[in-house]
Amino acid sequence: MAISTRSDLEQLDQQDSLASFRDEFFLPEGIIYLNGNSLGAMPLKAAERARQVVEKEWAEGLIGSMNTAGWYKLPVTLGRKIAPLVGAKPNEVVLTDSTGIDLYKIVAAALQLQPDRRVIVMEGSNFPTNNYMIQGLVEQLDDGYTIRFAEADEIMDTINEDVACICMTHVHYKTGNILDMAAITERAHSVGAVAVWDLCHSAGTMPINLNGCNVDFAVACTYKYINGGPGSPPLLFVAERHHGKCKQPLTGWFGHAEPFDFDRDYKPAPDIRQMLSGTQPTASLSTAEIGIDIILRADMQAVREKSMRMTDLFIELAEGRCDSEDLTLVSPRDARQRGSQVSFHHQDGYPITRAMHDRGVVCDYREPGIMRFGFAPLYTRYVDVWDAVEKLHEILKSSSWNDAQYRKRAAVT
Amino acid sequence: MAISTRSDLEQLDQQDSLASFRDEFFLPEGIIYLNGNSLGAMPLKAAERARQVVEKEWAEGLIGSMNTAGWYKLPVTLGRKIAPLVGAKPNEVVLTDSTGIDLYKIVAAALQLQPDRRVIVMEGSNFPTNNYMIQGLVEQLDDGYTIRFAEADEIMDTINEDVACICMTHVHYKTGNILDMAAITERAHSVGAVAVWDLCHSAGTMPINLNGCNVDFAVACTYKYINGGPGSPPLLFVAERHHGKCKQPLTGWFGHAEPFDFDRDYKPAPDIRQMLSGTQPTASLSTAEIGIDIILRADMQAVREKSMRMTDLFIELAEGRCDSEDLTLVSPRDARQRGSQVSFHHQDGYPITRAMHDRGVVCDYREPGIMRFGFAPLYTRYVDVWDAVEKLHEILKSSSWNDAQYRKRAAVT
Repeated sequence: MAISTRSDLEQLDQQDSLASFRDEFFLPEGIIYLNGNSLGAMPLKAAERARQVVEKEWAEGLIGSMNTAGWYKLPVTLGRKIAPLVGAKPNEVVLTDSTGIDLYKIVAAALQLQPDRRVIVMEGSNFPTNNYMIQGLVEQLDDGYTIRFAEADEIMDTINEDVACICMTHVHYKTGNILDMAAITERAHSVGAVAVWDLCHSAGTMPINLNGCNVDFAVACTYKYINGGPGSPPLLFVAERHHGKCKQPLTGWFGHAEPFDFDRDYKPAPDIRQMLSGTQPTASLSTAEIGIDIILRADMQAVREKSMRMTDLFIELAEGRCDSEDLTLVSPRDARQRGSQVSFHHQDGYPITRAMHDRGVVCDYREPGIMRFGFAPLYTRYVDVWDAVEKLHEILKSSSWNDAQYRKRAAVT
Repeated sequence: MAISTRSDLEQLDQQDSLASFRDEFFLPEGIIYLNGNSLGAMPLKAAERARQVVEKEWAEGLIGSMNTAGWYKLPVTLGRKIAPLVGAKPNEVVLTDSTGIDLYKIVAAALQLQPDRRVIVMEGSNFPTNNYMIQGLVEQLDDGYTIRFAEADEIMDTINEDVACICMTHVHYKTGNILDMAAITERAHSVGAVAVWDLCHSAGTMPINLNGCNVDFAVACTYKYINGGPGSPPLLFVAERHHGKCKQPLTGWFGHAEPFDFDRDYKPAPDIRQMLSGTQPTASLSTAEIGIDIILRADMQAVREKSMRMTDLFIELAEGRCDSEDLTLVSPRDARQRGSQVSFHHQDGYPITRAMHDRGVVCDYREPGIMRFGFAPLYTRYVDVWDAVEKLHEILKSSSWNDAQYRKRAAVT
């Protein structure tokens, strides 16, 4: 079907098998939200759940809610629940802490599985906090470890016999480029290296099969495409074959074999619970459950197809409508290589992003000059693609982004 | 004033300068809540704030709330706010992560200040997660570090010239015993050791002066006597003189000097922000602010006096009313040595605790045989002391705790 008018896109929405999911989210009037890759929209039931956890479980249940509302077990019960979304077994996942801290934990554990090697391979242009956390770990270990940075096309050749572990991000935060999880993991294993994956920008947008790819460890954000709420704790995955074979170093009581024995000395839980450390923020875990429940009902193949279709259309329409030599596609042109976002470079990317906001299109910006447009298949409509392109077209045509107000930087871009 | 009747206690409540704080909390009908040492009661405004953060800031503001609602800065702004409660300067405190993880961060940083020493002094009977976290750190450093465990009366003699740092808990979780923060810190400094303090069971119950005691690093829970909500992130303190002189190892982007430059390599923030790692659970941070706002309005000297008075009365009444040879005071008898809790040992402490719950008195249990009764001066009344003792008396007199239902263990005790 050739797309030439807005009603062509309305027709796609009418045919969309996922369309009804949008009704489960709150989306502000007059806003086209293309930033689900930073923070997913609020499921309506998350508001209910937050009221329940604060006004019933905390206020009325008080400390008893540890048992009666299952607070104590939430990291494990939500892990069991979300596991199928990423092709994991229920006993291989917990929800806990933050993505960076979880990455620190799993890479520290991974290195124990290959104790005679000292090289960690990472993508240098990766979301920097991953680099930072592993740089912190390497410095802390103070034992000759080095990070070998490689870009996407260099990764396979970089994974040699001296590599202890690879730590890769499935979908690139800036470009949306997808790394081949199966092939890179296979390559890692073929030289005896351990494979650690960050699914922050892929979980909830495409079928993921951690066990099908033989991944060893993984982490994934729950507040982006899983719509768990601001700062909701991420999922942490450890393949069952490694349980009891290595230990994360942030050894808090929730990771103890018998936390309520209050023994003086640490004894690791023999299972996925060893990945836990301390008490978790209950309100944020509880809203995460709502997002998880919704995404689990979605057919992930349909989600992926809609995601590819929307991003294809956005590229096609943007390049067609916006007669600008300065607008350059940064994301892969082939949808199969691309996550659920489209990134364009423009030298004035920042003020254009601000001007888009002013016209009700929420997208975001990453240095240098990169505008990111995220498409969340559960609530983004095909017409949103059309409307967003129209706004971009208007702004580029009128040069209205040159207004000084748009150049002023916000604290968070 | 001699206390012999319930109306004597009603009179104390009438004279209590802190009495009106109780109106700011939700306390369930018919419950005497003596477990604020595990989870503080809900301030009424916390419910409002949670609705605002979920239903307005998340739902309507979406990612823009990072700037417009100040989400991004919350760990720092709430740190600035809470600092006076513990005698810190505004630039010395952040709220982040969990107590155990924060302890790992600050002890790792503390050890860098005394790099030629390998001994860490801790109280062996401490809340175990502190031991566990430092055991994890020691194992990870794999560089000859050892933990020297000492009990309260041995601590001073144990702090010798070989000690790199002490890691002490101000008020003991089980007995309520107070360690002398000023004297122990002074002793540590006199031999060149760094002083790390855990204020989980003291912050919010007594005046604390970290800088007055020259403390180097500290951590304190916000969900106990500060009433921040279940799992709300703790406060983390680093004395200004150490900023830029040592580095915590969980080096996430929020601890980077310029997080939004997205540089490949980590560059530590020169200030307290270096203690931050990743994105924080916003709902839980936001409810913490309400508890902080309330406790800051309380006169901490009055809070301490009420706390001592209530715990004195509880001991006096319990020992007077309960004619039981099996009930032994575990907490210090001298109120000046005691935090805001009273612990009694009874061989059947567990079923008695359950029977108390059944009669509407929420207290808790710690092995072996220890019943803990926490008194939160902002919302516990003097009459609650009387009524709780009456219930304890009834149970002990009737031996009703022997009912089989009370012996069945809950997951969380």
